[in-house]
Amino acid sequence: MTRVNRQIILAARPFGFPRISDFELAYTSLPSPAEGEVLVRTVYLSLDPYMRIRMNAGGADSDSIGLGAVMTGGAVGFVLESADPAFEVGDAVFGMLGWQEYAVARAGELRKLDAASAPISSALGVLGMPGLAAYFGLVDICAPQAGETVVISGAAGAVGMVAGQIAKLRGCRVVGVAGSGAKAAWLLEELGFDAAWNYKVGDDFDSRFETLCPAGIDVYFDNVGGAITDAAMRHLNPGARISLCGQNSQYNLEAPESGPRWLDQLIVRQARVQGFLVSAYLDRFPEGCAQLTQWLHSGQLKYREDVAHGIEAAPQAFIGMLQGRNEGKQLVQLSEL
Amino acid sequence: MTRVNRQIILAARPFGFPRISDFELAYTSLPSPAEGEVLVRTVYLSLDPYMRIRMNAGGADSDSIGLGAVMTGGAVGFVLESADPAFEVGDAVFGMLGWQEYAVARAGELRKLDAASAPISSALGVLGMPGLAAYFGLVDICAPQAGETVVISGAAGAVGMVAGQIAKLRGCRVVGVAGSGAKAAWLLEELGFDAAWNYKVGDDFDSRFETLCPAGIDVYFDNVGGAITDAAMRHLNPGARISLCGQNSQYNLEAPESGPRWLDQLIVRQARVQGFLVSAYLDRFPEGCAQLTQWLHSGQLKYREDVAHGIEAAPQAFIGMLQGRNEGKQLVQLSEL
Repeated sequence: MTRVNRQIILAARPFGFPRISDFELAYTSLPSPAEGEVLVRTVYLSLDPYMRIRMNAGGADSDSIGLGAVMTGGAVGFVLESADPAFEVGDAVFGMLGWQEYAVARAGELRKLDAASAPISSALGVLGMPGLAAYFGLVDICAPQAGETVVISGAAGAVGMVAGQIAKLRGCRVVGVAGSGAKAAWLLEELGFDAAWNYKVGDDFDSRFETLCPAGIDVYFDNVGGAITDAAMRHLNPGARISLCGQNSQYNLEAPESGPRWLDQLIVRQARVQGFLVSAYLDRFPEGCAQLTQWLHSGQLKYREDVAHGIEAAPQAFIGMLQGRNEGKQLVQLSEL
Repeated sequence: MTRVNRQIILAARPFGFPRISDFELAYTSLPSPAEGEVLVRTVYLSLDPYMRIRMNAGGADSDSIGLGAVMTGGAVGFVLESADPAFEVGDAVFGMLGWQEYAVARAGELRKLDAASAPISSALGVLGMPGLAAYFGLVDICAPQAGETVVISGAAGAVGMVAGQIAKLRGCRVVGVAGSGAKAAWLLEELGFDAAWNYKVGDDFDSRFETLCPAGIDVYFDNVGGAITDAAMRHLNPGARISLCGQNSQYNLEAPESGPRWLDQLIVRQARVQGFLVSAYLDRFPEGCAQLTQWLHSGQLKYREDVAHGIEAAPQAFIGMLQGRNEGKQLVQLSEL
């Protein structure tokens, strides 16, 4: 049987923010899985900021997506056909399956999910890369202590919402910076942040930090970069730790941005800035997943998702996410659960 | 007996580079030491970039030098009179004695030197704060491994020359950035650096790094900041460590400088930037001093000094140091050894 598989391919490399015309909907047929392969029907596709970087042309060692190639992306779904003894039809799986309705993957590239333990979509968010990035990026890199002030930029995003809640569980004062008043309200009211603000209203970030972080900043978990980060650097406490998870404000610029230099502040404050990729913690994913799952089951960790529907909706949902329009982890549902 | 003591006081806060008129030579009389105090005749005064920062107006918690106050500075000399049992006349001592020919200090603020072990001036350089900053800032923060590429900015300065030699002792490939051709030649020929360049010739720092660090940068020890540091950030290897000791290019600016943003590079390279003050390692000074002294005695650690003469020469020597005119650790000799 030949299956029609709809995919989103990279049609053009974006200049600045991606446009709908940078993507193309393609129809292909899917082969049956060969020995050691598995055919998966995708239910949820994950949309994440890192994908924007991969849309750029890159050097030989980069993860740049080729022109005409299927957009890169993590996804969860169910096994439709298996030619590997490790998987059975109906198994729930996670894999880097790309922006497409069906995918054939090597069995070794798939991870089986326990659909009874948590909704499978959580493997793309709170129990997936974003949750693990929050966990290791905050706990391992910043070691937040009770009573310390922790600032999270992109606080309502897939990573930020988890990082902030972990900091609360550690007994910290947690201040979130988000891109809308509704998001800030959600952080305060639903997630129990101590303070949150919409950075799109007003531009005196220094005053905001003075008001909301009267004791200074001990830990800064950065998803955004740019002027918010510049200002945060002016309010660091001695021994501050800064974890760099993303620089979302920089990925869609048409020309590189300049900013004030602040390395002298790091010296005076004896502060540390650490960039990280969650993949560096691969060996410790089980530890992170176990902890996040426990918090989730005990109700101490909440999340929300913003779900678009249909593969053809993915480009617009992706652009919206880059613009901060999503409220919660951005997913695209491609087929029924 | 009333002694005439000549001092340099801060007459005006500099705008940009200090001028001679920002300093004033003052004549005072010195009291005899009270109980628990010691009178010291200074032989060598240390001139260091951090002093420039303290000439600025500062907040309540800053180390800003008051207008009309004696300039801050470390110095070594000999005890002339002691009213404390811990010191005898003739003892060689180090203390934060300021820019003056004589100083009365609390005994607890002085450290006795072993003049037989090393020239007392070394307590201001290779065996003092600069040497310790190099030792802890490189060894502790960067943990350089044999075969790694280590770049030092301000490499011919009091800190840089020690940091580079320690990196060589660790088996690293050491590349120095210095402010004159003569300094670069000295690093190569006398200190055994693997490469060195005068950054004042040409401004294509990227090409320099490509040529001189063909395997990329694993460790960057920064004394300078600015455009050199910006370029270094574009050549980092995965897992690079950056130690921030100083930002000498920034201290004399008339207006804050902007520069390209590069935090995304830290993420991609999983790199770490750590600012530090050597005072944080106070508890470990004995360890650092012992190691540096051993290297010095075995001939594995070299240094050079640039000595001006007479307290009245201190302002010009200080300005010259800020402009990079000194060749080696800048001292002012105020009296005979």
